[in-house]
Amino acid sequence: MIKIGIIGVGRMGKIHLANLASKIEGVELIAAVNPGEEGQKFARDHGIKNVSPNVETIIDNPEIEAVLISSPSDTHSEYAVKAAKAGKAVFCEKPIDKSLQEASKTVRTISDLGVPLMIGFNQRFDSNFSKVRSEIVQGHLGSLRHLHIISRDPMPPPISYIKKSGGLFKDMTIHDFDMARFIMGSEVDEVYAVGNCLVDPAIGEAGDIDSATVLLRFENGAVGTIENSRESKYGYDQRLEVFGSKGTIKVDNPLKSNVIIATHLGSTMDNHLNFFMDRYESSYLEEIKVFVEALQNKGPMPVSGEDGLKAMVLAEAANKSLKENRPVKISEISLD
Amino acid sequence: MIKIGIIGVGRMGKIHLANLASKIEGVELIAAVNPGEEGQKFARDHGIKNVSPNVETIIDNPEIEAVLISSPSDTHSEYAVKAAKAGKAVFCEKPIDKSLQEASKTVRTISDLGVPLMIGFNQRFDSNFSKVRSEIVQGHLGSLRHLHIISRDPMPPPISYIKKSGGLFKDMTIHDFDMARFIMGSEVDEVYAVGNCLVDPAIGEAGDIDSATVLLRFENGAVGTIENSRESKYGYDQRLEVFGSKGTIKVDNPLKSNVIIATHLGSTMDNHLNFFMDRYESSYLEEIKVFVEALQNKGPMPVSGEDGLKAMVLAEAANKSLKENRPVKISEISLD
Amino acid sequence: MIKIGIIGVGRMGKIHLANLASKIEGVELIAAVNPGEEGQKFARDHGIKNVSPNVETIIDNPEIEAVLISSPSDTHSEYAVKAAKAGKAVFCEKPIDKSLQEASKTVRTISDLGVPLMIGFNQRFDSNFSKVRSEIVQGHLGSLRHLHIISRDPMPPPISYIKKSGGLFKDMTIHDFDMARFIMGSEVDEVYAVGNCLVDPAIGEAGDIDSATVLLRFENGAVGTIENSRESKYGYDQRLEVFGSKGTIKVDNPLKSNVIIATHLGSTMDNHLNFFMDRYESSYLEEIKVFVEALQNKGPMPVSGEDGLKAMVLAEAANKSLKENRPVKISEISLD
Amino acid sequence: MIKIGIIGVGRMGKIHLANLASKIEGVELIAAVNPGEEGQKFARDHGIKNVSPNVETIIDNPEIEAVLISSPSDTHSEYAVKAAKAGKAVFCEKPIDKSLQEASKTVRTISDLGVPLMIGFNQRFDSNFSKVRSEIVQGHLGSLRHLHIISRDPMPPPISYIKKSGGLFKDMTIHDFDMARFIMGSEVDEVYAVGNCLVDPAIGEAGDIDSATVLLRFENGAVGTIENSRESKYGYDQRLEVFGSKGTIKVDNPLKSNVIIATHLGSTMDNHLNFFMDRYESSYLEEIKVFVEALQNKGPMPVSGEDGLKAMVLAEAANKSLKENRPVKISEISLD
Repeated sequence: MIKIGIIGVGRMGKIHLANLASKIEGVELIAAVNPGEEGQKFARDHGIKNVSPNVETIIDNPEIEAVLISSPSDTHSEYAVKAAKAGKAVFCEKPIDKSLQEASKTVRTISDLGVPLMIGFNQRFDSNFSKVRSEIVQGHLGSLRHLHIISRDPMPPPISYIKKSGGLFKDMTIHDFDMARFIMGSEVDEVYAVGNCLVDPAIGEAGDIDSATVLLRFENGAVGTIENSRESKYGYDQRLEVFGSKGTIKVDNPLKSNVIIATHLGSTMDNHLNFFMDRYESSYLEEIKVFVEALQNKGPMPVSGEDGLKAMVLAEAANKSLKENRPVKISEISLD
Repeated sequence: MIKIGIIGVGRMGKIHLANLASKIEGVELIAAVNPGEEGQKFARDHGIKNVSPNVETIIDNPEIEAVLISSPSDTHSEYAVKAAKAGKAVFCEKPIDKSLQEASKTVRTISDLGVPLMIGFNQRFDSNFSKVRSEIVQGHLGSLRHLHIISRDPMPPPISYIKKSGGLFKDMTIHDFDMARFIMGSEVDEVYAVGNCLVDPAIGEAGDIDSATVLLRFENGAVGTIENSRESKYGYDQRLEVFGSKGTIKVDNPLKSNVIIATHLGSTMDNHLNFFMDRYESSYLEEIKVFVEALQNKGPMPVSGEDGLKAMVLAEAANKSLKENRPVKISEISLD
Repeated sequence: MIKIGIIGVGRMGKIHLANLASKIEGVELIAAVNPGEEGQKFARDHGIKNVSPNVETIIDNPEIEAVLISSPSDTHSEYAVKAAKAGKAVFCEKPIDKSLQEASKTVRTISDLGVPLMIGFNQRFDSNFSKVRSEIVQGHLGSLRHLHIISRDPMPPPISYIKKSGGLFKDMTIHDFDMARFIMGSEVDEVYAVGNCLVDPAIGEAGDIDSATVLLRFENGAVGTIENSRESKYGYDQRLEVFGSKGTIKVDNPLKSNVIIATHLGSTMDNHLNFFMDRYESSYLEEIKVFVEALQNKGPMPVSGEDGLKAMVLAEAANKSLKENRPVKISEISLD
Repeated sequence: MIKIGIIGVGRMGKIHLANLASKIEGVELIAAVNPGEEGQKFARDHGIKNVSPNVETIIDNPEIEAVLISSPSDTHSEYAVKAAKAGKAVFCEKPIDKSLQEASKTVRTISDLGVPLMIGFNQRFDSNFSKVRSEIVQGHLGSLRHLHIISRDPMPPPISYIKKSGGLFKDMTIHDFDMARFIMGSEVDEVYAVGNCLVDPAIGEAGDIDSATVLLRFENGAVGTIENSRESKYGYDQRLEVFGSKGTIKVDNPLKSNVIIATHLGSTMDNHLNFFMDRYESSYLEEIKVFVEALQNKGPMPVSGEDGLKAMVLAEAANKSLKENRPVKISEISLD
């Protein structure tokens, strides 16, 4: 039984807390920290005895072996380092830090402490995408030639969010950068990014883009393209295709139901799932499961701090490419 | 080079004539007979030299080895027997005759003359359905357990047509009866049919039904169901599924295009093909090809006179079952 | 807060217990009864304080307002009546009783007591099927003409199970009979059933069939067909189509993933979900939700005792039809 | 009746000849020119009276109003100019000329002569792609944001062909460049191309690439990506998706049949169509139809000489981008 504490019981924290409280074996959630009363109540309702507004309740508790950090992004680094210094394994929601350099420092510190660190790239644990990776690992596609990722949100977040998001590449494409590395099993060597404001001029006025296309050259010779949009009138759209020497593999969107209605207007399928909370629901459970399993087996973390950094590097390179309108080598991006 | 003549250049005759004139190798269409000027002109425009309103032009021409009969249904028997007596191979559009007993007489006569006779059940030569049969013959489904056929027309024919159609089972289900025998490779032992008027009461007043469900028990133990409707608001609908001990095989409708458009209303596929002329276009070419090949190789006819009779027997049994609301054994239907 | 007790913590009971313990609002699961230790431990692990092998613990507890019965089938009637006599609302797993006459007596007794009774036909609450019903209720299909249900299990149960199952129609088709009534919103007037042993002769020796086709005539003039098989080599298969004057609506099987892999062998989709536990997982949660809602709103039960009886009547009629090989009127089946 | 002559009865010429001979109304094919005997025989077999090895037979025939040029690529320019100078309308297979500068000269010459010129970009007339364009023109997608084209051949051509092909962009991507302009209704402003040899090193030794990804920036702000491969183990693959402010529209591959077979191995769809001759068969007929209609109505040519040039310019820009690994403006490419 691994004893675990959770810091942050907001939107994501609630998902993790509910999963830890009743759906994962081999783990006991014994403490939850949240500044506000509502998150605290949620924790108590799920049977957590030790609920507090105070992070030290978890950091200083010697019984706790692992900490799940789902507090606001600007506290991730601080809490992760604190927990690691207290000798606890860390599961940290993305991003580690908004600054690549700070994130790098955090990852190195935790690594030097010899404490396990996993980053919450949940999409890797979606049954569709993990099946794609599994088919590739088994060699069913042969050598890989092309990757195509489509990632479109149903509607843009508020401008207030956009302003502090760090920009489209760091906020949204970051998932696709991680997915690209995960699926292809190869590092990116060069990035070329184009983007503009096609959805809402207010996003441009806030200094960001809402539409982007990124071209990735992988070290293994394959090429990837990512399409992003902050708005999709037909709903949340997350697709992927990998083409290799033996065939091609595609992930299409699951729909709300498998019902088709045919009338004189044609045959219509059901709508897309609403947003990431619906689409990736089971992946949130799965990622904590594999985290716990890795702790139990003392195996390597399924998504390392290094993985967290590399996705951020790609976002940085994409920003540079967008600004200078030229392909940018990954080696141009410094971690210091 | 097999020399061939065609009797009847109406809607179906034009399709056959155009195919014979330019798309089929090993055959030469040298004569066409049609009472009206329009069909005669169509024949001349396609390079047929010998065009006439007179059936004897073909029957008495010793050069002609095979005759394709696509004249009105009530002349099929007469022309088929005449052509056979003149020693010519016969390709006859369905039905051989509206009366099962007359049809039986015709088939026996032609059989006694030792002349090849093929019936125009074109749907057997549709690439979808022939692939299904081929998979079954190769054993990919194992032993067969269930057949399900859906056959729905886009809209009912005029009441004037209904009145002389011979009824739904003989006019429309006849194709499905033949398809059932072809696909399953087994004879039907018993028929149970229900039907009613759900589309247009005028069809009921004309003494017919417009909706039907037929249950077939095959000699091999499998069971089949056929769904028919004279009206389908979403277009022509022709589907089929065969379930066996190793799996199931399904034929879905080809659509006008492979275009899908997704908007806030859902994802919509293109419409169905308009009607049988579009859906089965290539099967008309294919059936004449195999007829010609069988003539050249002196092989058995791909769809025999016997096949034509058996589908009619099933229609007769369905009518009897509908009237008496009980399962009817095929052995209850007399050919004499 | 409605206080509830559960009787029977076996396979189905565990699903209901886990749902009641943590996923349903407005209800508190305060007691669980199970003869064996394993089910009792499961209940305690889910935080149920009052766990006992003794049914009276629940029946005699005046705090408990509702009882969920998921004990073995032959105890349903007894416990349901006991709970009803103690004034508690009853949620009863199907079947109410193996004997139609006993079941009828139970339903009438509970009805006379004026206590709410819901039968666990969970498939009605599957999001696919409930969407179909909703589209029909909204009039999108117009007047209904045909229903087609395919229901195939991945593999037959053990012969020992077959022997006490009550036969295919009562054990397996019963779900389809209920679905037929639910989807069509019309009662069945006449049943014609055929069936045989195509999967395993041992099933025949045990006095049962393993393959069946049932034809239903509804009071509204529509006709339905049901296809059942105890074995499907490609996995659990549950499909449905309703055809109406305005169009057709189809439910296809959800698959394990939305991944398609194309190689030189063709394009292959992922496998079917394993069996009903996977396919209908969310429907078990949904059915308890609507039960609780109905209790809270003092509304009518979403699936009544009457519904439970009517599906049994259809099974009885199908058995009679199979035996006598003729269409059987529902009015021929007596409840007494 | 427009009288027409055809120059070149090779693989493509045969398709055009057969279409002109019997499937297109309002036109009469009165002459065919081909150096070899086999093509001449093909023409005579299709009822063409005036068959010759001599181009002048067509150029000098005052009866002929239009010429279809399907001779080898290096003769297109010469015959097109000759025919135009003789006052005949010209339908010219792509490419106009291998040299962009020569092609430009040819187009300007014919334009100065005031003679209609159409280029054979047949894929525009495929029913799938023309439906996409039609939906866009009707405004169903709103303003356009992204285009994605996948174009993969089943297997590479012989190295001897590669060597004189002009390179992947001019030989294969040229179709996608034209499709991009056609679908988007907007000109390209900048091109970034990457490519390499992933299929066969012999292609690299011949100085070409076999895999490419091209990013296009359109003047309207949209971005397009094209994926090309000379080899696809699962068959010919031609897909396209356009994403706009109101939705997205996708073209998937038509398959050999609509048959799906499900076994314990999963559900498998039929294979892709073999290659462009099968996939685009009907588009060849359609393009000649619209050419003839435009002649009859004296309307503008559906695919102009300008269109032919612009696709070549994109290919030239892609080559420059590949060589210099940087985005290349279209304005950098000179026509002189």
